[in-house]
Amino acid sequence: MKILGIDPGLGTCGFGLIEVRAGRADAKALDYGAVTTIVDAPLPSRLKELYESLIMVFGQTKPDVVAVEKLFFSKNITTGIAVAEARGIILLVAEQKKLSVYEYSPNEIKKAMTGYGSADKAQMQEMVRVHLGLDKKPRPDDAADALAVAITCALLYHEGPTKQTYEFSNTRGKKKLI
Amino acid sequence: MKILGIDPGLGTCGFGLIEVRAGRADAKALDYGAVTTIVDAPLPSRLKELYESLIMVFGQTKPDVVAVEKLFFSKNITTGIAVAEARGIILLVAEQKKLSVYEYSPNEIKKAMTGYGSADKAQMQEMVRVHLGLDKKPRPDDAADALAVAITCALLYHEGPTKQTYEFSNTRGKKKLI
Repeated sequence: MKILGIDPGLGTCGFGLIEVRAGRADAKALDYGAVTTIVDAPLPSRLKELYESLIMVFGQTKPDVVAVEKLFFSKNITTGIAVAEARGIILLVAEQKKLSVYEYSPNEIKKAMTGYGSADKAQMQEMVRVHLGLDKKPRPDDAADALAVAITCALLYHEGPTKQTYEFSNTRGKKKLI
Repeated sequence: MKILGIDPGLGTCGFGLIEVRAGRADAKALDYGAVTTIVDAPLPSRLKELYESLIMVFGQTKPDVVAVEKLFFSKNITTGIAVAEARGIILLVAEQKKLSVYEYSPNEIKKAMTGYGSADKAQMQEMVRVHLGLDKKPRPDDAADALAVAITCALLYHEGPTKQTYEFSNTRGKKKLI
């Protein structure tokens, strides 16, 4: 089962594809990276660029499900609006590809990855590296963040108690991950 | 010149098409209404529904330019995120249709329509009715709001001093409206 994690962003949108197998706790990174849009370009043009790049990423990675980070407004509200606009495009592409979408808040991701909701960036990246059995932490940071979302999706399935919640947040009914 | 005004929303997205003619201050309402999405449906499905409805609206109304209300977070931040996600879809469709997009904040719209930025809903709707020479105020409210955005776009062009700003916000260079 291939999970495509996405770290939403307008300027840089990270993606990370992992493979999980029945009966195995580890996950394998198949592909990761980030798509970018031109900062100086008008917003509608950037959103179309993002749309077209994502169509390509989804086409090349061929995921079975998609995991996307939920928006949390803690820092800059203007940036937050742009991220939400980008998230609209991401969810549209996932739906056009007829994929189940799972959404996780930053805290849920941190907790799933490290055991507590206030882990810092370095700890998160190290856990991504460990989970995927990589020699170095994945680059760029947006790709590492996207892999963390994908791993969270895989982990929350394995953890029995959260299964119901997990399935509930599935946009295409109670399809099982593995 | 036909201007399509849009009042962004995920549950209800208003649209209003007006026609403005060179040397004339009045505008004519050609079409208006609202597209809706199913409240209980998953977010990605609603965004796709909105996308497809907007493709239809743009196809039927055949605007020359598009005017969209900017997002302003004054009320509910959760609703705000959903509106931003919907705005992403609206701007994508406009760009896919190769149309110039003009954006106005709620205050800019109120000021353009009534002369001051804190006009209430009833005053705004009355001004929409008067501007367009209608017998009754347009329904639903989202359509009236969308017509207000379109009228603002027309008015700000006519007002010399704001022309620069107006042209600056054009996403496709310094194309003149009329």
